[in-house]
Amino acid sequence: MECGLLFSAGKDSSLSALLLEEFYDVTLVTANFGITDDWTHARDAARALGFPFERIELSEEVAMKATDRMREDGFPRAGIQAVHEAALEAVADEYDVVADGTRRDDRVPTISRAVAQSLEDRHGVDYVAPLSGFGRGAVDRLVETHLTVESGPSESIKKGDYETELRALIETRWGADAVAEVFPEHEQTRVVGRS
Amino acid sequence: MECGLLFSAGKDSSLSALLLEEFYDVTLVTANFGITDDWTHARDAARALGFPFERIELSEEVAMKATDRMREDGFPRAGIQAVHEAALEAVADEYDVVADGTRRDDRVPTISRAVAQSLEDRHGVDYVAPLSGFGRGAVDRLVETHLTVESGPSESIKKGDYETELRALIETRWGADAVAEVFPEHEQTRVVGRS
Repeated sequence: MECGLLFSAGKDSSLSALLLEEFYDVTLVTANFGITDDWTHARDAARALGFPFERIELSEEVAMKATDRMREDGFPRAGIQAVHEAALEAVADEYDVVADGTRRDDRVPTISRAVAQSLEDRHGVDYVAPLSGFGRGAVDRLVETHLTVESGPSESIKKGDYETELRALIETRWGADAVAEVFPEHEQTRVVGRS
Repeated sequence: MECGLLFSAGKDSSLSALLLEEFYDVTLVTANFGITDDWTHARDAARALGFPFERIELSEEVAMKATDRMREDGFPRAGIQAVHEAALEAVADEYDVVADGTRRDDRVPTISRAVAQSLEDRHGVDYVAPLSGFGRGAVDRLVETHLTVESGPSESIKKGDYETELRALIETRWGADAVAEVFPEHEQTRVVGRS
């Protein structure tokens, strides 16, 4: 079965790909808005991991609504969640199985059982989240033995996730200070290959 | 890392074993009470799947308390949950990684994030539930392509799960009618090998 796995070049989505590869024909899918070319980092990581890659473009409206919400909230959670759900919907239009890298203790994005079942019923797909039953410690230990990663602050480690483009859009709309307000600085990691 | 996966010879725990085998040294573990020899069905299934097997004996007190609770409730849920948690604790004493086959839409047993983290913190282990992000449809489709199963009513398909022994104990303590009261009849499946 053809599985489209939302992919950011991060640890969680990369490890998810390894967990699923024996069971589905996995394509790594990066959703973006055409704002920056950061999706190419995800494409390169997908190649390094040995998976087919697809870029899906989400509508500008999704990005505008998400950044409005982030600016209003002063933090990114609800905006990221909305973008993630829009990306899952887009993947569900093309694949038999839709997957993502959400972890047991992720706070965002988080796909409830109800949202999962709704996605499955409306699109006639399976939604699978192979890391949903793994905590951070278990993921870190598996990443250490199976993947090669780089890490650093958000500005220097460019991934192919929504955050990079949403940061750029917020900067365009309201300036660099608005980005710092919405996104607290945190360490990012990018997967560069298998161990 | 040494992973002890709670195993009943059912579809969920068998598929979990296949999902984990590339990442851990998996031993299939059946917890029982020494009431019947139904654990041998789990041992045979483990052999057919090509995994090492271990039987862990839980205390009689766990079985007595669980059956008291089931008889009182008139349904098995809370008793099964208590036995499952006791089994996880026992596995956590012996392995680096504790796993089970709980599925996204299981109602029992179900391991909350809090219970998972408590198990991990108290025993210094990882708890992983590889099917926790898979719904019934996705599991059934993967089972179809990866496993060979037999199915039939509960009395005829003997697995190595707690239910078989708890049914026997309830029958001994309160008679056959009590078993029928607590356990509504349902279709069981047993895995007999890989496809």
